[in-house]
Amino acid sequence: MPETAAPSREYDHDVPGGGPSVPPPLTDVEDAARRSPAEEARTIMSATTIGTLATLSEDGSPWASVVAFGLLVDGSPVLALSRLAEHGRNAAAEQRASIAVSGPVIGDPLDSARVTLAGRLVKPATATEVAAARAAYVAAVPAAPAFIDFTDFTTWVLKVERVRWVGGYGRMGSTTAEEYALAAPDPVAANVPRAVEHLNDDHADALLDMARNLGGHPDATHAHCTSADRYGLDLVVKTPRGTTISRLGFAQPITEPHGLRSATVELARRARA
Amino acid sequence: MPETAAPSREYDHDVPGGGPSVPPPLTDVEDAARRSPAEEARTIMSATTIGTLATLSEDGSPWASVVAFGLLVDGSPVLALSRLAEHGRNAAAEQRASIAVSGPVIGDPLDSARVTLAGRLVKPATATEVAAARAAYVAAVPAAPAFIDFTDFTTWVLKVERVRWVGGYGRMGSTTAEEYALAAPDPVAANVPRAVEHLNDDHADALLDMARNLGGHPDATHAHCTSADRYGLDLVVKTPRGTTISRLGFAQPITEPHGLRSATVELARRARA
Repeated sequence: MPETAAPSREYDHDVPGGGPSVPPPLTDVEDAARRSPAEEARTIMSATTIGTLATLSEDGSPWASVVAFGLLVDGSPVLALSRLAEHGRNAAAEQRASIAVSGPVIGDPLDSARVTLAGRLVKPATATEVAAARAAYVAAVPAAPAFIDFTDFTTWVLKVERVRWVGGYGRMGSTTAEEYALAAPDPVAANVPRAVEHLNDDHADALLDMARNLGGHPDATHAHCTSADRYGLDLVVKTPRGTTISRLGFAQPITEPHGLRSATVELARRARA
Repeated sequence: MPETAAPSREYDHDVPGGGPSVPPPLTDVEDAARRSPAEEARTIMSATTIGTLATLSEDGSPWASVVAFGLLVDGSPVLALSRLAEHGRNAAAEQRASIAVSGPVIGDPLDSARVTLAGRLVKPATATEVAAARAAYVAAVPAAPAFIDFTDFTTWVLKVERVRWVGGYGRMGSTTAEEYALAAPDPVAANVPRAVEHLNDDHADALLDMARNLGGHPDATHAHCTSADRYGLDLVVKTPRGTTISRLGFAQPITEPHGLRSATVELARRARA
C-alpha cells in the first residue's frame, strides 16, 4: 500500500469566505487508502502511448509537440525523434525536456487526471539499453519498425527528475523520481469505466448501503460511484444535510486487472453485515 | 480557396533506395485543392478546448502541462493559469510559450493531425480585450466561472508567431501568424467521421466510379474513403498495378457544416457523366 495514503488538498484559492464545504460523516469512518501521486503518475503513463513533449528551441523558447512514447520497466518514457522535426533538432542540442500525458477524460477535462515528467533526454548507451528502449517503443508504436531505423531518427530515454500529478480540481501532488520508478501502475485502471457504469446502473442499492453503513452517512438518500481504483471506490452521496463525498476502501488492494468485481462484492457484503 | 493548394511532401527520410512509390494515374487528373497549413491549423484548434502548453521553468528548462483554452476570432488561444501551478508561475516570469493541440485520432496517432503554435503570452490590456478573452475562455470551459475570478488566476492570450502543422506521416507545413489569423476553420470538420463511414458503408460503388473516372485509375477494383474536408475527398484505391491514393476535389468549396452530402452527390454524378 502506498506510503502517502491520502494526498491532501494542497492549497486553497484565495476565495472570500473560503472554499466550499460539504457535510461531514456522522459516524467514525476508517481512513481509506488512495493511490499515491507516484502510483497515479505510473497509472496515467501506462494507459496511453501519446503525450506532448516540451523541448527548447534554438533561441531558448519552449516548443510543445505531440509524440508517441513507450515505457521502460521503471516508467522512463522512450521516444524516437527525427532530426527533420523541430523537437528532434531541439533534443539533439539541449537535453532538458518534459512530457505531459493525460489520463482518460470523463466530463470536464480540467477535472481529469494528467501528469508531467521533467528530466533529461539520454541516448541508451549499452546494447542492452538500446534493445530495451527499442522494444519498449515498438511495443507502444506498432508502426515504429517502418521508421525507427531511418538515419534521421534518434531513440531517447527521458530520465525522470521531477513528477507532478494533477488528479483534477484540488487533487494533486508531486513525487520523486525514485518513488515514481518504484510505483506500480494500477492493474484495474483499464476496467474502471465499465465497472463504474455497471455499479451505478445495476447496484445503486449496494452503493447506498455502503454510503450509509461504511461511509458515515446513515441518512444518505442516494449514492453514485464516480471512480474506482485498486484501493477502493469514490462515491457522491446525497443526504438531507447536502451532497457530500465518501471514500470506501477495499479489504485488500487489488492485484489483478479483473479484481474489481470481487472486491466490490466484499464491500457490499460488509456494508450489509 | 487557399493559396497553398497542395502542401507537398517536404522532405524524404534518408532511406536506402528512396521512399515507397505508388502507381501513378493513367489519365490526366485535375489538381484538387486541399486545405492550406493555416486552414489545417485553424481547423484543429477549433475542434477541441484542450492542449498542452510549454513554458519555461525558473531554471530555463521546458515545462509541459495540460491546459484548457478558448479562441479569439483570430485564432489566438486564451488561457487562464493559476500562480499556484508551475505553468502559471512560469508564464508570469517569462512569456515565451507554445501550445500543442491534437486533432481527432483515427488509428495511428502519429498519422493523425496536430499543430504547434508558438509565440508570447500577453495579458489582455483594454476592457474590450479583457471581455473578449474572458468570453472566449468561458465559451470553451463551462466550469470557468467557478474559478476564473480567483485572485491566483491570470488570463493570458497567446500571441501566435509561428505555426507548425503535422497532418500525419509525410504531410506537414509551416505558416505565418498572418495566414493563421486570416484562415477559416473547416466548417465540415465535425461531420467528417460520420460522412466517411457512410460513404464506405453505403456508397462503395460511387467511390469506385470516382476513382475510375475522376481519379485517373480506370482499372481500379476497390476504393475506400479515408478522409474528407471542405475541398474534397481522399481515397485509397486498389488497382492491378498496386494500391494508390487519389484526391478528388468538390466543384465548389463547402461553406456550411452539413454540405458534405450534396458536394459528394455532385462528385458521384460527375463520375458517372
